[in-house]
Amino acid sequence: MPTKRRFLLAVVLLIAACFFASALFAAGADDELMKKAKEVFGPLPASMPSEHNPITLEKVNLGKILFYESRISIDGTVSCAKCHPISLYAADGLKKAIGNNCKENPRNSPTLFNAAAQLSAHWIGNRTGVEDQARQALTGPPAFGMPSNESVEKVLKGMKEYVSLFKAAFPGEKDPVTVDNFAKAIGAFERTLMTPAPFDAFVKGDPKVLTDQQKRGLKTFFETGCSTCHFSPYGGGQVYRKFGVFEPYWNYTKSEKVDEGRFVVTKNEADKYVFKVPVLRNVAMTPPYFHDGSVDRLEDAVRIMGKAQLLKDLSKEQVADITAFFASLTGQLPDEVMRVPLLPSRE
Amino acid sequence: MPTKRRFLLAVVLLIAACFFASALFAAGADDELMKKAKEVFGPLPASMPSEHNPITLEKVNLGKILFYESRISIDGTVSCAKCHPISLYAADGLKKAIGNNCKENPRNSPTLFNAAAQLSAHWIGNRTGVEDQARQALTGPPAFGMPSNESVEKVLKGMKEYVSLFKAAFPGEKDPVTVDNFAKAIGAFERTLMTPAPFDAFVKGDPKVLTDQQKRGLKTFFETGCSTCHFSPYGGGQVYRKFGVFEPYWNYTKSEKVDEGRFVVTKNEADKYVFKVPVLRNVAMTPPYFHDGSVDRLEDAVRIMGKAQLLKDLSKEQVADITAFFASLTGQLPDEVMRVPLLPSRE
Repeated sequence: MPTKRRFLLAVVLLIAACFFASALFAAGADDELMKKAKEVFGPLPASMPSEHNPITLEKVNLGKILFYESRISIDGTVSCAKCHPISLYAADGLKKAIGNNCKENPRNSPTLFNAAAQLSAHWIGNRTGVEDQARQALTGPPAFGMPSNESVEKVLKGMKEYVSLFKAAFPGEKDPVTVDNFAKAIGAFERTLMTPAPFDAFVKGDPKVLTDQQKRGLKTFFETGCSTCHFSPYGGGQVYRKFGVFEPYWNYTKSEKVDEGRFVVTKNEADKYVFKVPVLRNVAMTPPYFHDGSVDRLEDAVRIMGKAQLLKDLSKEQVADITAFFASLTGQLPDEVMRVPLLPSRE
Repeated sequence: MPTKRRFLLAVVLLIAACFFASALFAAGADDELMKKAKEVFGPLPASMPSEHNPITLEKVNLGKILFYESRISIDGTVSCAKCHPISLYAADGLKKAIGNNCKENPRNSPTLFNAAAQLSAHWIGNRTGVEDQARQALTGPPAFGMPSNESVEKVLKGMKEYVSLFKAAFPGEKDPVTVDNFAKAIGAFERTLMTPAPFDAFVKGDPKVLTDQQKRGLKTFFETGCSTCHFSPYGGGQVYRKFGVFEPYWNYTKSEKVDEGRFVVTKNEADKYVFKVPVLRNVAMTPPYFHDGSVDRLEDAVRIMGKAQLLKDLSKEQVADITAFFASLTGQLPDEVMRVPLLPSRE
């Protein structure tokens, strides 16, 4: 074999070896990243059950109808769907939710998708769960604003179809049209609101569903320390944490006023500026961000989190990578949830 | 044949003859009623086209998304769906519509189903049609409340997906993201909102879809004179009429204040207390009633109409019959309309 040809062959072999080695290396890196993703997040369940409120078809059916019911609010304009419209991924796009008679709620409306398995409800954990949230919303002054549970029950009992629906959802109960059962029906509905996303296929072992940038973003997410708080299949909702670990949070955000967070609930000094870590599912679709909706762009929210929580100056590329990773958490809304129900007639 | 047997046969024959005669008579009455219904109402068309705004799939698709868009309102809470929620047959169940920052609109939200073929839009005809209504709502102070058309266009242009959707709906236009095209898209969507009802099968010749009570109600509706104003496939929307022909309307309703009606538009004394005759499709599902939502129950609205417009004291039975007939106008909502669209993302 002439020297020239031998030389060429060697080069080709070398290039091929490099190619395979790099592919192997990449595959190894993918495997490691998937393993870590599985550890930190785990698979998204099919629903978010509760032993206190078993999910039944009849409850979900009733809950979905009640979700759109505005005639049980003091001014007739508030339903669950008002602050959680499905068309905006069950958030409302506002800084803070607006309830009856234009009353501003104290904090931002979070999405209801993949939200029922958190350690509590509301940003500061002043509701024990989705059922408690639904129940208290009815008489909550800035929410539905009704004077009493009885006043809600009276409206519902005035519509025959509701009486039948409650009976079907709570069989054997003598007087099933109650606010407690309203809460259970809404809760059962919310417990079915899952949005499987491309990221779930990655966790299950398919590396191709994430782009290289998304993988870089996920790696940075882990390396920076974001997953210390943002874990579980929901990417959050499992712990309370102080917002602004190194410096007051309002040094970074455009907050109009200081929110003392969980301190409002516990009166414990250590809970000042402590909030529930929000879920990250569909985060790209639910601006504005933070408990007060004070930040509009996801990139800014990522940058602020890095600095305020971890004292890290994320580079522009790192921020873009993490944001790209977040897009892989944007899920598919359940078909049945996209259908608006017709509400019972008053006649 | 013995006398007794002959007598029996005669009785049987007589009964049979009576039976057939009465069936023939009823069939004749049904035929006459169907003929009259066909003359007065006519068949419901498949859509409500406009030569100025041809209905295209792309416009309807865009219109349906824009229908849910609240980010083009001054406080972020108003979309078309706010005052016309599909779950309440595209009316809102309130006396008067509530717009941005809790501003009360001057009149009651009518349903949008079967509504685009009226002689004008709004109760007093101060909008030329559904496109004009949609266009003016954006800057209408109690509606979306935006400061200018440009401010709306800026929001829409800020979302790439909208730019694509407008381009697809208005091909060949250099700068299609305009408020005029917003209005055309919403209009095209509204022009498809038809709800075929049991009554339509009756008009087409099937007498069995109406109960005897409903037929009596329809007959009374004609005989009393209701159809003088409530005609066309929509059962209204074709003429303006004074509310309270013999006595001021507020003598009958629970109106909180006097509305001068179309006089506000024309300043013509003859137009005082004149309103557009509303459509009757789905009327059973869209309380409260009249331009100011001052009457809650359909039976009361029917009774008041009889007295205030026709100087007739309808009996309790007549009112019940007419109300029963109205139930046959409650239609099937188009499947596609029951699906909520996802809105374009801000990012």
